[in-house]
Amino acid sequence: MDPQNYNLDVGRRERLGFPEVIFGQNKDVHTLNSIIGAYLEKKESVLITRLQPEKHESLNPDFSGIFYDPISSVCIVGEHHKSNLVGKVGIVSAGTSDEYVVNEAYYCLQYLGIEADKIQDVGVAGIHRLMERLEDIKSFDILIVVAGFEGALPTAIGGLAPQPIIAVPTSVGTGVARDGTVALHSMLSSCANGISVVNIDNGYGAAMAAFRILNIVNNK
Amino acid sequence: MDPQNYNLDVGRRERLGFPEVIFGQNKDVHTLNSIIGAYLEKKESVLITRLQPEKHESLNPDFSGIFYDPISSVCIVGEHHKSNLVGKVGIVSAGTSDEYVVNEAYYCLQYLGIEADKIQDVGVAGIHRLMERLEDIKSFDILIVVAGFEGALPTAIGGLAPQPIIAVPTSVGTGVARDGTVALHSMLSSCANGISVVNIDNGYGAAMAAFRILNIVNNK
Amino acid sequence: MDPQNYNLDVGRRERLGFPEVIFGQNKDVHTLNSIIGAYLEKKESVLITRLQPEKHESLNPDFSGIFYDPISSVCIVGEHHKSNLVGKVGIVSAGTSDEYVVNEAYYCLQYLGIEADKIQDVGVAGIHRLMERLEDIKSFDILIVVAGFEGALPTAIGGLAPQPIIAVPTSVGTGVARDGTVALHSMLSSCANGISVVNIDNGYGAAMAAFRILNIVNNK
Amino acid sequence: MDPQNYNLDVGRRERLGFPEVIFGQNKDVHTLNSIIGAYLEKKESVLITRLQPEKHESLNPDFSGIFYDPISSVCIVGEHHKSNLVGKVGIVSAGTSDEYVVNEAYYCLQYLGIEADKIQDVGVAGIHRLMERLEDIKSFDILIVVAGFEGALPTAIGGLAPQPIIAVPTSVGTGVARDGTVALHSMLSSCANGISVVNIDNGYGAAMAAFRILNIVNNK
Amino acid sequence: MDPQNYNLDVGRRERLGFPEVIFGQNKDVHTLNSIIGAYLEKKESVLITRLQPEKHESLNPDFSGIFYDPISSVCIVGEHHKSNLVGKVGIVSAGTSDEYVVNEAYYCLQYLGIEADKIQDVGVAGIHRLMERLEDIKSFDILIVVAGFEGALPTAIGGLAPQPIIAVPTSVGTGVARDGTVALHSMLSSCANGISVVNIDNGYGAAMAAFRILNIVNNK
Amino acid sequence: MDPQNYNLDVGRRERLGFPEVIFGQNKDVHTLNSIIGAYLEKKESVLITRLQPEKHESLNPDFSGIFYDPISSVCIVGEHHKSNLVGKVGIVSAGTSDEYVVNEAYYCLQYLGIEADKIQDVGVAGIHRLMERLEDIKSFDILIVVAGFEGALPTAIGGLAPQPIIAVPTSVGTGVARDGTVALHSMLSSCANGISVVNIDNGYGAAMAAFRILNIVNNK
Amino acid sequence: MDPQNYNLDVGRRERLGFPEVIFGQNKDVHTLNSIIGAYLEKKESVLITRLQPEKHESLNPDFSGIFYDPISSVCIVGEHHKSNLVGKVGIVSAGTSDEYVVNEAYYCLQYLGIEADKIQDVGVAGIHRLMERLEDIKSFDILIVVAGFEGALPTAIGGLAPQPIIAVPTSVGTGVARDGTVALHSMLSSCANGISVVNIDNGYGAAMAAFRILNIVNNK
Amino acid sequence: MDPQNYNLDVGRRERLGFPEVIFGQNKDVHTLNSIIGAYLEKKESVLITRLQPEKHESLNPDFSGIFYDPISSVCIVGEHHKSNLVGKVGIVSAGTSDEYVVNEAYYCLQYLGIEADKIQDVGVAGIHRLMERLEDIKSFDILIVVAGFEGALPTAIGGLAPQPIIAVPTSVGTGVARDGTVALHSMLSSCANGISVVNIDNGYGAAMAAFRILNIVNNK
Repeated sequence: MDPQNYNLDVGRRERLGFPEVIFGQNKDVHTLNSIIGAYLEKKESVLITRLQPEKHESLNPDFSGIFYDPISSVCIVGEHHKSNLVGKVGIVSAGTSDEYVVNEAYYCLQYLGIEADKIQDVGVAGIHRLMERLEDIKSFDILIVVAGFEGALPTAIGGLAPQPIIAVPTSVGTGVARDGTVALHSMLSSCANGISVVNIDNGYGAAMAAFRILNIVNNK
Repeated sequence: MDPQNYNLDVGRRERLGFPEVIFGQNKDVHTLNSIIGAYLEKKESVLITRLQPEKHESLNPDFSGIFYDPISSVCIVGEHHKSNLVGKVGIVSAGTSDEYVVNEAYYCLQYLGIEADKIQDVGVAGIHRLMERLEDIKSFDILIVVAGFEGALPTAIGGLAPQPIIAVPTSVGTGVARDGTVALHSMLSSCANGISVVNIDNGYGAAMAAFRILNIVNNK
Repeated sequence: MDPQNYNLDVGRRERLGFPEVIFGQNKDVHTLNSIIGAYLEKKESVLITRLQPEKHESLNPDFSGIFYDPISSVCIVGEHHKSNLVGKVGIVSAGTSDEYVVNEAYYCLQYLGIEADKIQDVGVAGIHRLMERLEDIKSFDILIVVAGFEGALPTAIGGLAPQPIIAVPTSVGTGVARDGTVALHSMLSSCANGISVVNIDNGYGAAMAAFRILNIVNNK
Repeated sequence: MDPQNYNLDVGRRERLGFPEVIFGQNKDVHTLNSIIGAYLEKKESVLITRLQPEKHESLNPDFSGIFYDPISSVCIVGEHHKSNLVGKVGIVSAGTSDEYVVNEAYYCLQYLGIEADKIQDVGVAGIHRLMERLEDIKSFDILIVVAGFEGALPTAIGGLAPQPIIAVPTSVGTGVARDGTVALHSMLSSCANGISVVNIDNGYGAAMAAFRILNIVNNK
Repeated sequence: MDPQNYNLDVGRRERLGFPEVIFGQNKDVHTLNSIIGAYLEKKESVLITRLQPEKHESLNPDFSGIFYDPISSVCIVGEHHKSNLVGKVGIVSAGTSDEYVVNEAYYCLQYLGIEADKIQDVGVAGIHRLMERLEDIKSFDILIVVAGFEGALPTAIGGLAPQPIIAVPTSVGTGVARDGTVALHSMLSSCANGISVVNIDNGYGAAMAAFRILNIVNNK
Repeated sequence: MDPQNYNLDVGRRERLGFPEVIFGQNKDVHTLNSIIGAYLEKKESVLITRLQPEKHESLNPDFSGIFYDPISSVCIVGEHHKSNLVGKVGIVSAGTSDEYVVNEAYYCLQYLGIEADKIQDVGVAGIHRLMERLEDIKSFDILIVVAGFEGALPTAIGGLAPQPIIAVPTSVGTGVARDGTVALHSMLSSCANGISVVNIDNGYGAAMAAFRILNIVNNK
Repeated sequence: MDPQNYNLDVGRRERLGFPEVIFGQNKDVHTLNSIIGAYLEKKESVLITRLQPEKHESLNPDFSGIFYDPISSVCIVGEHHKSNLVGKVGIVSAGTSDEYVVNEAYYCLQYLGIEADKIQDVGVAGIHRLMERLEDIKSFDILIVVAGFEGALPTAIGGLAPQPIIAVPTSVGTGVARDGTVALHSMLSSCANGISVVNIDNGYGAAMAAFRILNIVNNK
Repeated sequence: MDPQNYNLDVGRRERLGFPEVIFGQNKDVHTLNSIIGAYLEKKESVLITRLQPEKHESLNPDFSGIFYDPISSVCIVGEHHKSNLVGKVGIVSAGTSDEYVVNEAYYCLQYLGIEADKIQDVGVAGIHRLMERLEDIKSFDILIVVAGFEGALPTAIGGLAPQPIIAVPTSVGTGVARDGTVALHSMLSSCANGISVVNIDNGYGAAMAAFRILNIVNNK
């Protein structure tokens, strides 16, 4: 695709308060380098999600300030945004294997200038682990709750904590749960009230949903 | 079931800030009357969702203050809650046929003491209708966006307004869209950033998610 | 179907320790009366599951000792079995709406001569309700755990109690959970170890699985 | 397969106005070379879709005039058709990642001798991008509209432009949208009137549908 | 819903050349009467699809010129549109049971002022029936091809006739084909080139797609 | 697995008239060599289906008489069976890409000593190709009809030829047809009477079904 | 539909050896009476499948010789066909509840003049019942094997009897098996060799498949 | 992930009688080495399931006592548990290809100190093989029954043996059975009474379910 055909949404930050983000999975390196270059020329930093390691290694070496997290495949080129939004997001996850999604949310929040912390490995199969961290969990303004397999963690937290809860199903699982659909459906049909859900493995979407909430919290 | 076997979660309001709600669809009238009676005895009002019209008509006539909306099948027995939460929720919907879900969200918010307004019939197939109401839409603190069929409305609004968006798919549709799954999946995979989603037809869940957000907005 | 074409499995009790059970849902009243009559003639009692109320009312009035539970649609004609199996089964359920499955398990166990108790309405959304009953729950030899919607209850109990757990998903739910598949898949992919699962709404199958376990417990 | 077993449909152009096209994905190079050779012998050019790059490189080097587009995996051996069909097709797409389908349609139209242009990256999440190009879009005789993820673009265009719209869902997406089914279903159940749809990723089929329409436009 | 909340899209005819159409299935009679009344006041006729017979009988008796086809559940209140679009649409169907969809397309075309004819009962299982009508079929400008079960008719016609083909799957079928998905998928993956497809049972959508084509045919 | 644990079903030929067949796909080379060796020791030849090429190359080089067809991945070690069954099977397929399934059926029939012929590339999209071969097709005793994509070929043949028809769906297809389910469902719901179907890509199963029929033809 | 639009396939018997059959489920009584009348005028008898009881009662009382089986909803108007086909079909079923499908096959065979017998209630859960009838089962020329739930009966018979086996899944079942898909898939993926399958509940299709086989048996 | 973030559930053995087990599939080698090291430091042995061969080879060479079974991908580091639980588990499987699941169950039981034996290759397609081993099978206290494809083995055993039966579906199969769902659904809807089921390929879960039963057997 000719670079002049790219249709960068450079007005998004003005409209929505946050910048456009690049979905790296299906784009080739040539396209990615063109897009990143176009942003850097406008003195904008860029967040790229789902960037395969081999593409990361082929990015234009002239770009300075490339950050890459191999667990989540998040890549940031340039500076983090400065945000004056007050509020802290807790990212709580069920198992160690969910870390790739936890990190996608975490680094997106960092890029947006939002304060965030991780509480991992507190799945429902050993509920005492959750109970021990409950006060910590309740100290956040917003909770992003990440789980694969049967995805029961948001339900348990939803009955214990009054914060906004953004549930993220992961594709960690075996057999019927092998693609994350079980966790997704479990979270959507949770008996706990007022949980909302984003797409499977969509740590980035959860971060953006948290951003929208902090936006209104701070503008009130 | 013997009334003494009911396990009312009367502490929920203290834990989460909002009361338990009764899912009326699968309960028989005898059970419902017992549960309602138990709440009224504790001087608590009750919200019942998915109460079929014939059950509404068989509720104990001694109960005073029964409100019933036949479009959404929401029933409220007793007073609305007094809330001092500041903030207003906009419920935006794509078509006239989605009103049963719009109303479920609307009356749940009323019961919780939250201010809300409806903007209906602004679906994407005639996008000028949406554009004409855009300023109104952007005036709310939180948006609940309701759509059936292909469920494109939250995507369009998500690109235009910076508020938290809780998308609710409805089971209004034909052919492949006949059970609401298309709208659900469309909302989950929206290109617009930061939209979160609740279960099909779950107006009540959307209201509760809005409540959780207003909770943190007001406690900040 | 001519009565002489029925192929009653009268040797099942000898082979397996428990008698044949009649699946009533798709059989007409004429067939059912013939089958019941054939059993009674052999001095055997009969258990019929999924017997619609209108069929119950049309059973041959000459049969004596008809028991019918309208919640679970279980019908028993004749005496309960005498069992000398030691051991007690706890039937634990998430919500009031699951009672039709709880009762199917309960009356099947009664028919087989097995001691059983119900603990209802202890779903995960209010986990304190579960914790308050935990000692009771741990006092049983076998647990049948029944839940609809997201089906998280067996996971929570599985992490807290060492007993054999037979999980039963119910078709109580809305939206994506409307047919019980979400609860089924959630239980199959539970992070809690060693939970086994029966078909959606299959309280009877759970009772039989418990019987098989007590069988070996008592023969050891 | 012995070459004499191939059953080339050489009369298709006479019957339908357009030639047979080879589906390259499941055929081995030996078979492909035989088929291409058979066409070239009859002085016919050939269009091959879904030709993997490694197969392209193993085509018979004696063939002259091989064109290959690595983005869409379209291969053309021989001359483009001369067409005297008047009319112009616009290929509109939601995101940069959809280009492999855009190009499949584009090169098929070129091969058939139909004039076509591309308008890319005008997805609904930033609807101003679409609005800015609306007059261009309305200048075409037929629109092929390509989108992945939630596939909302044809709905938006369908409400704004009166042309025939052939919608093409792509398998660009993550989570529930990972195989293109969400975009397909979204397009099929669009609230916009009169949109017709082809299979997932089927740029070629869309080009052929456009050809059929131009056929009748020109014969009227 | 208060009548003043209806958001009639009265500018649709100007934008797209055809008027808004009312989806009757989920609207109650009160709402329908209000909408129809609003149109009649503006001297516009109205087309209502999927209008259940009992609703048809409860329409406001003051409305004059109500047409109702009980096979397709199409209702038209007021005059047919005058169209000067030249061109004729053939509606071809596989079996007698598909007539409800054939008629939905037929009456919608009549309402739009488009000439149309039906050729029914020419399914592929007796392909001589199709062959006998082939010249008739090839005489139309556009073909709407309707089939249930395995939906093979559009494929057979697609290989024999060069016209634009709009395929409509119906929900006529048993077993795996019981909801029309088999016919839909069969049409989408047809080996015949350039067939486009609308939603299951969507005769109305097919009529609108034909309208869009005739639009461009006549404006060329 | 220890060779002594294999449970060869050496009596199958006596019971059913045909020998056991080895499913090669999930077995490792060590296991396959042991099983083949055990058969050869009993002076039995062996048919192995779905044998990946790299496993074929690692078979024990001491085995004599190894036949391998790389298109179908069928491997035969030892002699073909001598059969005195009279009757001839026609294997008819829609496209060149279906040859891997055609060959699986063909070589299995050869191994069983049954006469068979192939008629390929006569798909419904160019129905004249089918009509030209119709007399040939009607000359067989049994028809195995193989097709991918929309799988319409068995329907067309079923309406034209009175023979037993065993339909085999293939996983050749794209988009919704990518795994063969569309062809399978299309064949199961065919309007043509008396077609029976085997699993996706199951050329071997079709051969065995043909064998069972010839068995009874010859024993009558 | 105007009677003159019916496209009776009166040449089917000549082409295929068996007559056209009417699918009654979606046709209204008026249409059915017209079709039956047209056949009777040609001195042909008619078989109608899936005729709801209330439609049976509304058939034209002038028709003579109406046979109706309320279990299978098969209706025959006029004489059974005289057939000189030698051979006998065994219809074997797993449970009493499958009788509606058994009867559909049985009466279709009767209508076609084919000899048939039923062996019911020999499901795999009590395999001794099957073993006791094995010699009877092996005495038929062709076996139609009918089962719901997990559909294991054809597999068990397939390993014991060498005849052609036409497996028919039924929609008798609960939970995951509620619509017959489990039995269908189970039969398609059976480890027993050479079983072929027809659509869910398709007793009629199985009868026709048996007819095709007897056709070739008798013509050999 | 920082090692200090791991949340080892070291109290699980005390709570449930069995230790935590590590799911190796999605964890990288660095994480696995840290977790294993942490257990070894506490003088605990570790069981890791689904450990890919290349990860096994990269485990810290300082760990002593690493056992690895390449068929099941089970890895054990350290000593087997000493158990004084009396009782023996039989692991019965349908085909040689199911061995990877058989072994997962087998080595988990070994690790837990439970006596177990394997009976392989007794699938239902040759039911005499099952009958020959029936007395052996009935000699166990608990049966784990493993099968892929149509998964009929648990049903057959369930009708013949009175023990507790834990059914394990495997993903061995082709076409519709390619991912194990057919076997899973078949087992869930088995006509045999009292079978319970674990997730696809979940040999480990079956072992744990057996452990829970032996626990209660021994504590009675």
